[in-house]
Amino acid sequence: MMKHFNKTALTDMDFASRIKLINSISGYKSANLVGTIDSLKQNNLAIVSSVVHIGSDPALLGFFVKAFGERHTLANILETQVFTINHINKDIAYQAHYTSAEFPKSVSEFEKCKLTPQFIEQFDAPFVAESRVKVGLTLADKIDIKLSGTTLIIGHVTHVLLENEDYFVATSGIDLNRAGTICISGLDSYHDVQKFASYEFAQVESFPDF
Amino acid sequence: MMKHFNKTALTDMDFASRIKLINSISGYKSANLVGTIDSLKQNNLAIVSSVVHIGSDPALLGFFVKAFGERHTLANILETQVFTINHINKDIAYQAHYTSAEFPKSVSEFEKCKLTPQFIEQFDAPFVAESRVKVGLTLADKIDIKLSGTTLIIGHVTHVLLENEDYFVATSGIDLNRAGTICISGLDSYHDVQKFASYEFAQVESFPDF
Repeated sequence: MMKHFNKTALTDMDFASRIKLINSISGYKSANLVGTIDSLKQNNLAIVSSVVHIGSDPALLGFFVKAFGERHTLANILETQVFTINHINKDIAYQAHYTSAEFPKSVSEFEKCKLTPQFIEQFDAPFVAESRVKVGLTLADKIDIKLSGTTLIIGHVTHVLLENEDYFVATSGIDLNRAGTICISGLDSYHDVQKFASYEFAQVESFPDF
Repeated sequence: MMKHFNKTALTDMDFASRIKLINSISGYKSANLVGTIDSLKQNNLAIVSSVVHIGSDPALLGFFVKAFGERHTLANILETQVFTINHINKDIAYQAHYTSAEFPKSVSEFEKCKLTPQFIEQFDAPFVAESRVKVGLTLADKIDIKLSGTTLIIGHVTHVLLENEDYFVATSGIDLNRAGTICISGLDSYHDVQKFASYEFAQVESFPDF
């Protein structure tokens, strides 16, 4: 049987159910850990399901953070101008999920969740050693979204670290299946992913006959 | 063997390879068709892999569009203030992919790709009949991202249509596996998804012992 939630039904729905519904209707979400550090070298790690591609030339990724309350990730990025985005794989999904507990700033989620900070030369923010695809970024812009009380953080991609060079195929990009990257739905569900098709660049001149 | 692309390596990489690399490093992306209509009732359908959750209270989803060139989706939304977001399932992935061919505005991608426009009362934008999870939205905000020449379109969720009421579980949101929703990587790859875990809300007080 079909189900139609109209505006009234959405408004009248109890708050907890609505949050779960709305968090699931965008479809599957990317699964990443954002690593940051403050000027006193206290590091921070946060699971983020809102990382999006912003542009390729220049190379830009973004993600959304809440702008209210105690936001260590946002504060650290504004302080040091750098952050990392680390793909979550199945082996670290459980630990990654628990970085969302609201620890005080003096506590490192790396330590609490038994993940290992990894540093490279001339770049201050910590990567996650257990992640297999890692991106280092420098802050490029910060856009406040008034309607939702969130901030879109945009970074320039300055480093890409792959655990295995075979993950990258020049003709198609990173093979995320091979890298074991997972995805998220809603607020709490983690999923394996398996490619079933790649299609050619769509052109009017060579359009398929459906 | 590990691979490290630093800023120089990224800049020196040939353009086509860099676009493919950068389009794949955000992780898996949501797979949706955005349906719009103009004031003359000419409809339009576009595959979009950048739909993101913006907020739950009010309920908001967003997606990014290029702000240059002939952008029928953006023009239609500005004209009629409404649009739809329709989850892509495996049965329509091939057709959905080819909505990205650059047809002139007089051509409807619904017709070209053999997908069926579906309308509900008091809402002008077309849904995709073959999609199993559909969202109707009214334009809430439009934010230009200067760095990338893109625009973030944000809509208020006013309708949620589910082909089967069993897709919705009040305690966890929409079961995307059950709805057959798929996800995207890079520019051309489509993936099946299978849940392997759900974890409890992370709290300091009941933190697991890793």
